[in-house]
This record gives sequence, C-alpha cells and structure tokens, in this order.
Amino acid sequence: MTTRTVDDLISQGQAARRAARLLARLSTEVKNRTLLNLAEYLETDIEELLQANEADCSEARESSLSEAMIDRLLLTPDRLRGTASEQRKIAALPDPVGESIEMTTLPNGLVAGRRRVPLGVIASIYESRPNVTVDIFGLCFKSGNACILRGGKEALRSNSALIRLIRRALVDAGAPAEAVQFVDNPDRELVDAMLKMHQYIDLIVPRGGDGLVRFVGENATMPAVTGGVGVCHTYIDRAADLDMAANVTFNAKVRRPYICNALDTLLVHSSVAVEGLPRIAAGLAASGVELRCDNRALSILGPGAAGSIQPAAEDDWGREFLAMAAAVRVVDSMDEALEHIETYGSGHSEAIITEDYSAAMRFLDEVDAAAVYVNASTQFTDGGQFGLGAEVGISTQKMHARGPMGLKELTSYKWVIMGNGQVRP
Amino acid sequence: MTTRTVDDLISQGQAARRAARLLARLSTEVKNRTLLNLAEYLETDIEELLQANEADCSEARESSLSEAMIDRLLLTPDRLRGTASEQRKIAALPDPVGESIEMTTLPNGLVAGRRRVPLGVIASIYESRPNVTVDIFGLCFKSGNACILRGGKEALRSNSALIRLIRRALVDAGAPAEAVQFVDNPDRELVDAMLKMHQYIDLIVPRGGDGLVRFVGENATMPAVTGGVGVCHTYIDRAADLDMAANVTFNAKVRRPYICNALDTLLVHSSVAVEGLPRIAAGLAASGVELRCDNRALSILGPGAAGSIQPAAEDDWGREFLAMAAAVRVVDSMDEALEHIETYGSGHSEAIITEDYSAAMRFLDEVDAAAVYVNASTQFTDGGQFGLGAEVGISTQKMHARGPMGLKELTSYKWVIMGNGQVRP
Repeated sequence: MTTRTVDDLISQGQAARRAARLLARLSTEVKNRTLLNLAEYLETDIEELLQANEADCSEARESSLSEAMIDRLLLTPDRLRGTASEQRKIAALPDPVGESIEMTTLPNGLVAGRRRVPLGVIASIYESRPNVTVDIFGLCFKSGNACILRGGKEALRSNSALIRLIRRALVDAGAPAEAVQFVDNPDRELVDAMLKMHQYIDLIVPRGGDGLVRFVGENATMPAVTGGVGVCHTYIDRAADLDMAANVTFNAKVRRPYICNALDTLLVHSSVAVEGLPRIAAGLAASGVELRCDNRALSILGPGAAGSIQPAAEDDWGREFLAMAAAVRVVDSMDEALEHIETYGSGHSEAIITEDYSAAMRFLDEVDAAAVYVNASTQFTDGGQFGLGAEVGISTQKMHARGPMGLKELTSYKWVIMGNGQVRP
Repeated sequence: MTTRTVDDLISQGQAARRAARLLARLSTEVKNRTLLNLAEYLETDIEELLQANEADCSEARESSLSEAMIDRLLLTPDRLRGTASEQRKIAALPDPVGESIEMTTLPNGLVAGRRRVPLGVIASIYESRPNVTVDIFGLCFKSGNACILRGGKEALRSNSALIRLIRRALVDAGAPAEAVQFVDNPDRELVDAMLKMHQYIDLIVPRGGDGLVRFVGENATMPAVTGGVGVCHTYIDRAADLDMAANVTFNAKVRRPYICNALDTLLVHSSVAVEGLPRIAAGLAASGVELRCDNRALSILGPGAAGSIQPAAEDDWGREFLAMAAAVRVVDSMDEALEHIETYGSGHSEAIITEDYSAAMRFLDEVDAAAVYVNASTQFTDGGQFGLGAEVGISTQKMHARGPMGLKELTSYKWVIMGNGQVRP
C-alpha cells in the first residue's frame, strides 16, 4: 500500500501486527523458501530494479550528492549477487523460533521451560544503502518477525522495487505479503509518527549516522537498538609485542576506516612509546592516515611528512572519526589507559596489545564495552565473525542484547508449563 | 547520606555508579558473606528496627490508613526471620556474574564468547512493604549491581533502619557501603528527577500497583521492567476434565486472590458449561468469590446465594480484580477463547484445561503471554516455582527478560575475545 498519511502508516502497523501472528507459526521450510526465492529474483529478475536504481542515482547526481553517497546508493548485478548470497546464508542458519531453553521437569511434575518466540514487529529507519532493505527483511523474517521499513529518500525508487521483489518471494513461497511494510513517503512527519506507534512496533532499529541513532533513541516510545556508534581504542601496553601492535593497529584502522569498529584512538604506554610509536605510525602514515597526537606523541613522531602528524584538538578524544584519521595519546600506566577508555569510549569495541597475562586479564575484567579484545583487531566485532551468521546491527546497550545482534537477538521467549492438574500449595 | 535535593540524588547516583564498578568484580565469597551477615542481623539486632516500624505503623493508624495497608507495613520478628531466610537462599544461589556463555575457539584461532556481567545500577520505586527493601537489595547485590531504593513514604523510618542494617552487613563483609543508596525524602519531585537519571541508572524496577508501574513505564528515560499487572484467564476446553477444572480454577483464584497471577476471567466452552460451570462455581462461591457473569453463564448459574453471582459489566473483561471476584464467560469455540485472551489479556499468565492434545498444543503455540499453562494453576508464575531461586519482579515485556526475573535476568554480557595477533582479512 501507499503511505500518504499517518493513518496509512497506522494501517501498515496493523497489517504488520496481523502478519506477525502468522509469522510466529510459519514453518522453517516456508521461511527458507521465501529467502531462496528472493535470492534467485535478486540475480535473475533485476531489470526493473536496476532501472529504478538508475533513476535514483541520476537524481542524486543532479542534486550534487557526494560521490561517496552515490556509491552507497548504487546497485549493480555484482552487488545484488552479494545481497542474494547473504539471503542464502540466512536461509542456511538454524531457525531460532521454537527452540526450547532449559525445559525441565520440576519436583511437582510440571514440565516447564522457555520457548523462543519472535519479538513481533520490528521497524527500521535507515539511510541511503538500498541493500539494507533486503538485509533487515531477511533477518527479521527468518526470526519470525514482521517488519516496517523506512529507507532514505534518495533510494525511494530502488527500495520500492526491492519491496516488490520481496513481496513476490513471500507470495510465491506461500507466506503473507504483509510480512514486510514499506513507508514509501519520505515525509519526516511520518518518522515522528512511527516513533510513537508502540502498540504496533516492538523494537526499532535505526541504521545510520550518530544523529539518526541518537534521535531515534531519544524519541522512540518503544525499545530501540541504540548502538553502532563506536569510539574504539587500542591500548599498546608496556609488555606489547611491538610488531603485533603495528600490525593489529594497522588493520583496526586501515582495513575499513569507515565502519563503527575501526580504530579511533591509539593509547601507547610511555615505556614503549619511543620505540613503538614510530613503527606503528609508519604504516599508518604510509597509507595516508592522519594522526592527531597529544604533546608527548607529537614530540616522538615529530611533524609528519605531508601533514599527516597533527596536534590533537580537545574534541579528538572520544571522536568517532569514520575517516583515515586517528588520535594518539601516550599514557604512563594501565590505570590511565583504563580511565581514558572509560571517559571517552562509547562501549563498543576496545583492545589491549600485551604479552603480560595479568594486564590482559585485568583489561578483560575492567573494560565495560560490548566487545573487549586481547591481541586482536577491533574490526572483528561483527555477527558473522562471532559465529552469529549475520547481524541486524551492533548494540552498545546492556539490556536485551549487547554487541552484534543476530537472529536469536531478534527473539524473546515465553514460559511454557505443561501439567496434569497441579495446584500451588 | 540524606537526600534533600535533586543534587543530593545525583550525588547518590554517582556514588552508586562508583560502587557498581567495584561490585562488578566483587568476589562471590564477599557477596555471600554480606547476605549472611544481613540475615543474621535481621534475626538478632532488630530492636531499633522494630521501634522504627512501630513509629511508622502508629502514624499510619493516626492517618487512618486501611488495615490491609498497615498489615503490609508491619514488621514482626517472625516476618523478619522470613526475610532473613530469603537472603540465605539468595546467598546459596550460584553467582551469575562471570559465567561464560558459548565460549568457543573460532577457525582463525580467536577464543571468543560472552561473559556475564552486571547491568550496573538498578533503581527501584516501591510502595509500602518494607521487606521489599531487603529483597531488592539482596537480588541486585548478588548479581553485582548497585541499587538506589525509593520506598513508600509510610515506611520511611522502617526502611531507613533496614538500610542501616544492610550497610553494616556490607561493611562487616568488606563490601562498599555505597552499594545501596536510599532516597530518604518522599518528595515526588525526586521521583521525577530519578526517572531522568539515565546516566546513573541502567534499569528501573517499579513494584506496586498498576498506576505506579504505568507512570514509571511512561516517564522513565532508562529501561524499565513494566510488568506485574496480570489479567489472567483460565479456559475450560470442551475436552476438559471437569474435576481438574474445578480444582485448578479454585487454586488459581482462592489460594492468594491479591497477587498478579491470580485468576481474573474464567472462559468456559459452551459444550461443557451446563455440566461444568455449576461445579466450578460451587467451590468459588462457597469461599466467597463473587462471579461476574455474561448472560449465558448467568442463565446457567442463576442468581447466586448471598449475591455472589452477578451480571458482568463491560469493564469486567480485562479487569485485574486483585480481590475475591472473577469474570465468567461462555464461549463457543477455542477460537473465541483465544480471541478473548488476545483482546483482554495483559500477557502475564494464561491457562487451558483440556485432555485434548491438539487443543493443548495449539494453546501453547498461539497464546502470546509470559507464561502459558496446560492443566495447571496460573499461580505457579513465580521465580521460585520456575527454578530461578528468587525474583525481583515479573516482566510482561518481550525485550530482555519475560516472566519472572531472577539473578540472571539482572545481568548483561560482554563479548570477550582473546587472540595472538589476529587481523581481519
């Protein structure tokens, strides 16, 4: 249906709620068939989709959107094959719905335990990348949830075409088309209305920049996954293997500098700074990473070639760079490093490089973040890497789910109790 | 410290946050010693406490509070022994903090998994019963959380005396006294301020009537456990064993009529109503339960002796009676029963009485509630009964925890990843 008004949006909420009741009991077979249909259509029936995407992209060019933005918008047969393969991976994952958790026979003969059930209706608000439409649908659907999707206005035609493919995949597999609801009106008023629809939406997942995530977190009347913002530190301990330090730091920043688990601030213990910092900085600088240094780091590294070594500004501590840049600070103790991380970290991913067993254990114990690493790159924080198969996002909250959220994290449970007439004494 | 102003409350929030960092790493031994100390003091050092409680109770009598209210306020050596024994039970439960969840070695050699950690700071707002002060503290503390407690103003002196005992138990065991913060100013303005303190409070648990729970749910800026309101149905299927139906229904209502998992509405299939309803009603009526009946139930039961059979008002469906009363409706099918439960239930505890296997399975599958029963009394919904050892409350939400919340449900986890230099390809 078309979303013209808030009333239309409420009708979509009601349709999603109806679909959710069916989805909660849909067989794994039908769910997987839907996802495999969708994968197939994304590879073979993409003419209309590519035309819609071309229209979105040329409008974006006319509106002088940045090249990076247009690149995120762009769909190609190759990218669609990637999206299709993601859906096949989700189809291959075990169905979390119906799993029994700690089912046991109690002393009074009651058989009681928890049974995993879907959350119900999950809404997502996201920015320009149209493949997010398919990714979020796939994860919500496999975990038995209906979804309401609101993508960026630049991708409206592409998203509408993707929704048509998704609905065809649903219907062809015998699943309800209402399982996916798409808000095809980019009016901001509808976003505000959506955030108030707690009778129809059980969880809302914002996917995009800091501003969007914060706005949703502060204004949603239903639970929201507020995460995805990562101010990530790597601390080079005095007992670090400095080659490993250089190697891991390089990967944490340069592999993909634009994602939430990329390095933002490097903390280096003063007793290894003179020897280690130049080795670490060399690789980063050679790749064009700008280093924003405190005074001590600056005096060790000196003013860099081509301006890549800069003094840090006060707001570089705690900044999520999402760019080829990082802050560098020399600390005199692990206490100082821990305090810096506690003050400036966002609770996403934090790492220590050390050969000292006690330092490693202390870091794991004391750092309060979704993912805490010893001797590894923070870029591993990802549902696929952690064995969850796929992820809908990364939570930096402590309630419900923390870190990458896979299929299980999109479920709840109910207590199921089977008796033969028991009464409570 | 004394809470005079909002600034004092914020200082208490900061103190709780500081304590929470220590508590997250406190040994199980020190935690258990604290709880055992507290249990001992609650049995042996209660003179000052009983005086404080006597002052609260006599003020309550002067203010003409109801007898039920004064009874809830009252502490006696016997009741304190019960509270002490609850603390000993919590001490005997396994410590959830530090537990490894699905720790595994990934193909790249990273050892990764989740480690259970406390939530941080838990606040609770509750009504007159002073023993809640001790119960909530015990559960929060054993699960490594600091707590901020705000009890009913009628119990202010009793609660202050209990907090002194708790702090002594903490200090004598070598634990930080700041682990418990008590808001000793009953000003409502401070409640409003508390609900805004999301930097200092990770979870808020309201304990009391519907009004309080809803107020906290709607106004808290941090996650809240909104539950405890139970509109509970028992459905007597056409294949029910009618003796069992009478027995289980009686227990679900009469054992303790004032608690959230007590029966509110009885649904009876029309094909067994003529035979079954009089048998079920007889026991209830004999105990003084008022039955508010739809027309069909009314015509079967007739006008009751001593006014115990009444026509139902429209708002009796979906009412949480918390009294010796229940609504009764005759339905023509299981579909109708399921629809009634979906429309009027609060997602707490729902039961079917049946000998029909498919009906039982369908009820378990389709009813969306925290606890779904076949052939048992809804009064079993309780952390102790379900093997959780104790409970801080019953959640009717789907996020984080559903149903009784024990120690584990007061925790989160962090991902712990141990490597030897791994970088992500």
